[in-house]
Amino acid sequence: MTTNHTSIDQRCINALRFLSIDAVQQARSGHPGLPMGAAPMAYVLWKRFLNVNPQDTNWLNRDRFILSAGHGSMLLYALQYLAGFEGMPLDAIKNFRQYQSVATGHPENTLVPGIEVTTGPLGQGISNAVGMAIAEAHLAARFNKPEFKVVDHHIYTIAGDGCMMEGVSSEACSLAGHLGLGKLITLYDENRITIDGATDLTFTEDIGKRFDAYGWHVQIVEDGNHDLEGIAAAIEQAKSVTDKPSLIRIRTTIAYGSPNKAGSSGSHGAPLGDEEIQKTRENLDWPYAPFEIPDDVLAQMREIGADGARAQQKWSELFTGYQEHYPAEAKELERLVRGELPQGWTAGLPTYTPADKGDATRNLSGQCLNGAAATVPELIGGSADLAGSNKTHLKESSYLQRGEMGGRIVPFGVREHGMGAICNGIALYGAGLIPYCATFLVFTDYMRGAIRNAALSDAGVIYVMTHDSIAVGEDGPTHQPVEHLAALRAIPNLNVIRPADGKETAGAYQVAIESRNRPTLIALSRQSVPHLEHTGADQVGRGAYVYSDSDGPAALILIGTGTELSLCVEAAAVLEKKGLAVRVVSMPSCSLFERQDEAYRESVLPRGVTKRLAVEAGCDMGWHRYVGSEGATVTINRFGTSAPGAQCLELFGFSVENVVLQATKLLG
Amino acid sequence: MTTNHTSIDQRCINALRFLSIDAVQQARSGHPGLPMGAAPMAYVLWKRFLNVNPQDTNWLNRDRFILSAGHGSMLLYALQYLAGFEGMPLDAIKNFRQYQSVATGHPENTLVPGIEVTTGPLGQGISNAVGMAIAEAHLAARFNKPEFKVVDHHIYTIAGDGCMMEGVSSEACSLAGHLGLGKLITLYDENRITIDGATDLTFTEDIGKRFDAYGWHVQIVEDGNHDLEGIAAAIEQAKSVTDKPSLIRIRTTIAYGSPNKAGSSGSHGAPLGDEEIQKTRENLDWPYAPFEIPDDVLAQMREIGADGARAQQKWSELFTGYQEHYPAEAKELERLVRGELPQGWTAGLPTYTPADKGDATRNLSGQCLNGAAATVPELIGGSADLAGSNKTHLKESSYLQRGEMGGRIVPFGVREHGMGAICNGIALYGAGLIPYCATFLVFTDYMRGAIRNAALSDAGVIYVMTHDSIAVGEDGPTHQPVEHLAALRAIPNLNVIRPADGKETAGAYQVAIESRNRPTLIALSRQSVPHLEHTGADQVGRGAYVYSDSDGPAALILIGTGTELSLCVEAAAVLEKKGLAVRVVSMPSCSLFERQDEAYRESVLPRGVTKRLAVEAGCDMGWHRYVGSEGATVTINRFGTSAPGAQCLELFGFSVENVVLQATKLLG
Repeated sequence: MTTNHTSIDQRCINALRFLSIDAVQQARSGHPGLPMGAAPMAYVLWKRFLNVNPQDTNWLNRDRFILSAGHGSMLLYALQYLAGFEGMPLDAIKNFRQYQSVATGHPENTLVPGIEVTTGPLGQGISNAVGMAIAEAHLAARFNKPEFKVVDHHIYTIAGDGCMMEGVSSEACSLAGHLGLGKLITLYDENRITIDGATDLTFTEDIGKRFDAYGWHVQIVEDGNHDLEGIAAAIEQAKSVTDKPSLIRIRTTIAYGSPNKAGSSGSHGAPLGDEEIQKTRENLDWPYAPFEIPDDVLAQMREIGADGARAQQKWSELFTGYQEHYPAEAKELERLVRGELPQGWTAGLPTYTPADKGDATRNLSGQCLNGAAATVPELIGGSADLAGSNKTHLKESSYLQRGEMGGRIVPFGVREHGMGAICNGIALYGAGLIPYCATFLVFTDYMRGAIRNAALSDAGVIYVMTHDSIAVGEDGPTHQPVEHLAALRAIPNLNVIRPADGKETAGAYQVAIESRNRPTLIALSRQSVPHLEHTGADQVGRGAYVYSDSDGPAALILIGTGTELSLCVEAAAVLEKKGLAVRVVSMPSCSLFERQDEAYRESVLPRGVTKRLAVEAGCDMGWHRYVGSEGATVTINRFGTSAPGAQCLELFGFSVENVVLQATKLLG
Repeated sequence: MTTNHTSIDQRCINALRFLSIDAVQQARSGHPGLPMGAAPMAYVLWKRFLNVNPQDTNWLNRDRFILSAGHGSMLLYALQYLAGFEGMPLDAIKNFRQYQSVATGHPENTLVPGIEVTTGPLGQGISNAVGMAIAEAHLAARFNKPEFKVVDHHIYTIAGDGCMMEGVSSEACSLAGHLGLGKLITLYDENRITIDGATDLTFTEDIGKRFDAYGWHVQIVEDGNHDLEGIAAAIEQAKSVTDKPSLIRIRTTIAYGSPNKAGSSGSHGAPLGDEEIQKTRENLDWPYAPFEIPDDVLAQMREIGADGARAQQKWSELFTGYQEHYPAEAKELERLVRGELPQGWTAGLPTYTPADKGDATRNLSGQCLNGAAATVPELIGGSADLAGSNKTHLKESSYLQRGEMGGRIVPFGVREHGMGAICNGIALYGAGLIPYCATFLVFTDYMRGAIRNAALSDAGVIYVMTHDSIAVGEDGPTHQPVEHLAALRAIPNLNVIRPADGKETAGAYQVAIESRNRPTLIALSRQSVPHLEHTGADQVGRGAYVYSDSDGPAALILIGTGTELSLCVEAAAVLEKKGLAVRVVSMPSCSLFERQDEAYRESVLPRGVTKRLAVEAGCDMGWHRYVGSEGATVTINRFGTSAPGAQCLELFGFSVENVVLQATKLLG
């Protein structure tokens, strides 16, 4: 059944297999099937092609490797350990999937140097890879010189059948074909087995033809279990095709080598079992104990790291020449790689005063984004075909397109989920690029998988989400967000900011651009709001602050966010005239407020003032935390309706009159 | 520029265009471009092919028509009005997008008889159509007899470029090809213009080849503006291909007929303006006032309704024969169409006692689902490739496959978003089918667009979502939901139920199956829980109930959901031993509880008892509503970690010990 038992190549491949088999068995949990089948392609790729340096996992010009089929995590850990990445010691692998082991169930970029992105949710990794290929091509266009190709490497992924079925990868791969991302090479581990059985059950499309339709270069390796030269030749060929992304269909057998479980879905997500492992050892001629790596194998695999270190050394020499000939460009690129924002970049942000004409916060956002783009050249992004509505066009830049990859406006198309995953790839590429993306707030539903992954993997993506309430108006409930602010605030490690006016919008951009290890979502309005007197750009970072206080101890606190802050301000004026002492709190970001210390939070929302009214044109979920048992909210807990925006607001009680009424009720 | 000015066909097409143009102009809001370009195909389809009866919009064997490009809503409203659907009067069109007009911004099935589904979020409609085609083929397989094809009609959609770019439609269309859904015919309005400009910007894939790869039959009509016979011939041809879904690419000009805006993205989402409308009237030779429909046009269009009524009459005769020859089948089909559950169906649900061995609620769910499937033959669905983990296999049924469409297990594949949208189509098909679908709770993120649309369109889909907390364990944070319960509870009109044991799981299924106009999501555990003494299946419908009370007035209320209820029960026992009077409340569903009257809610959570502790292995968002200012929660507001499930629970404080500790703290 197996060939070349004794060749060093085959022994390395078996080492990858058995580290995976034994770690999964020890954990009594995990996915052995993919590592066993994909070990040959992974070995060929890493040994003969992949330029990575375990000693410097942040090397700019390293090849990027993404295991899109993240459930096969042990394959990646085995590769890392054997290639000499110190962040993945053998002990971690022995403790695969145990508490505090960095060999976690699925690969997590935040835990392990050299793991580029967090994968596991299917389709994300291959879509992240599209983002990385955009980043590579963009930086190459901006920085390379004919004699100094300082950014010139490949992005490799291993993807499985599941990744191919997910819509997010369809979106991202369609865009990759459009852009002609020649540096992107996907090794498709085509084992035709998913958890529920053979792909015959559900997935009989012609995948090669589909990718050909996207504009990809497609090859097939019929025997991915044995044909190492075929795999290598296909990768060579893929590298030679520079104007198209490449898909290499590599036909493999899941759990290859297991006499009774090879080719069966039973090996997908469960340990093989001691008996079957013993049989597999015999079958593959692997007489070593669990986690034992023969010296010759380790030596052969460690060459990967040594080769990578040499490659980086060579590149460093190139870069030294670049520094000499193009010192300004070199300095700028070094700044980017350090992830350092340009000195004084905030000067690009507009300032506003109450005398300025009121405007929709989406328009103010457009001004802030353009202002920031002028001083922050690493800002790059676009909209999912709503640039005119989202106000995200960079007026001084051009579209990023095939042959014009230096453009900063990414033409995402109507592909929200792909857009989100691509931005994660751009953010995690590791060269300081700051991706932003945009659609209507309601359509965050389409890209929530990618937003969560950004939060989980510390990707500093900026989401510009406009049309942030029922005030969208005529488009009706399909386009009117109601539950979205709450649903997004629930995601850990995501900044959600809903600015009230120009100053707060500028403040939101400052937070977003400075948050390089945390994604930030800015919710913006379609309708106009006034520029308020006491708002402050600098206050946004604290999440909430006292906007105004009447004389004397407050009887009531009005809490407003975004477009509803001005309602609170006006209502407070009416209530003050009635002799009531009112505090108005602006709360652009619950998530940022929660990160403040207890003393600050108490200073904004003192325990003693229990009559509190929160006003937000969204659902009430989450607001009881701030209004407490004796408080109330002006919110909307149903879907909206198709009518002009101002009328929608009025209908659902978002008026000064109703805020005054509810506040009065509250005070009894 | 235009031809056949005087033909009645062309006049009808122009009537569709001008109703759209004038309604958008009157509303100063909307999308005129698509209706103007797609009017010819819509006219040909409706006039020559579509069997619909305005007098009986629930006729089982009607053709289904879905405007997937929902922003072109005026086209659908114009078709409906002209064809004689009384639910869409001219007055509604004159009040397009105004409050209380049924001619809403995007089509809403809950408002207008004959509008099959709610569209607007791109890609949903065409995916709903896949669900409808599955429903048609499934019912045909179950009920048709050689001489009585009582279910035998087509599902037509008009989709635009945006629908083609969305991942959800990629997923659904791939499955449609796999299943060979020959009754599904998509007219693709290929105008190559989206909101941001020409599709050249971002969407240059070979769409025909892509659909061919999916296994679709693909045709092209080059001149969709004029070639009515070509459109008709293509539809005829598509109907004749019975083993593949059909895509007809129809090349059109957006805003056809507008001298200055035709072919431009400026016409996509904004009124043409009075001056341009006047020029368009002249250009298309349409001398009528806004909303004026010439008699000959109305007469010609009203024939659509008359033809449909005749078609239904003919079908009724067929059905009468069917009733005579197959009375049992006829009766069953009539029951389905009435949406009436089988008498005594709940007998299929298992019952549990505290003596039963504890189990994971996902396993109990599998028992309930299988039990219900035995007595509710309209239950049909499956998992996104996690059937073994979700426990959703119907043991007594088989896969629904090409040539075996009577099977009740739908092989959705790794296509969560497509799965959700397909289920919406099955639910809204209108023949009583009850779709269920399943994945891990964390991956509701992938299908949230479809879940929201179900809630918005009253689609009684059942979501079986397992692995509902960090107790997932080793798979780690990518697979451990934390924020999902909160995020789902925020969606209006969605039942979210997290049962605590066998009885509550059965109760959850009862609610879900009886909720025919509202989707229900059931969150289920991977880990085992005991069967508790005082839980009740019948209590689930109230959302929350008193599980137990100590003697004497409660000093503390412990609120538990799902797997954490048993922690509360055990903690209460410990606290009682310490002499504290404790009430335990089981709250399987906040959403159902919120629908109870004030008196009932007060009886469960009396205002006077302010010391409350909620325990849920999810984030705290939403819980302050129930625990109030003096309460607290045992929850988790961060991403989880990769470790065995029991250890995860312990690490994050989900232990009896910690619940007791927190309760004690609360009581000071």
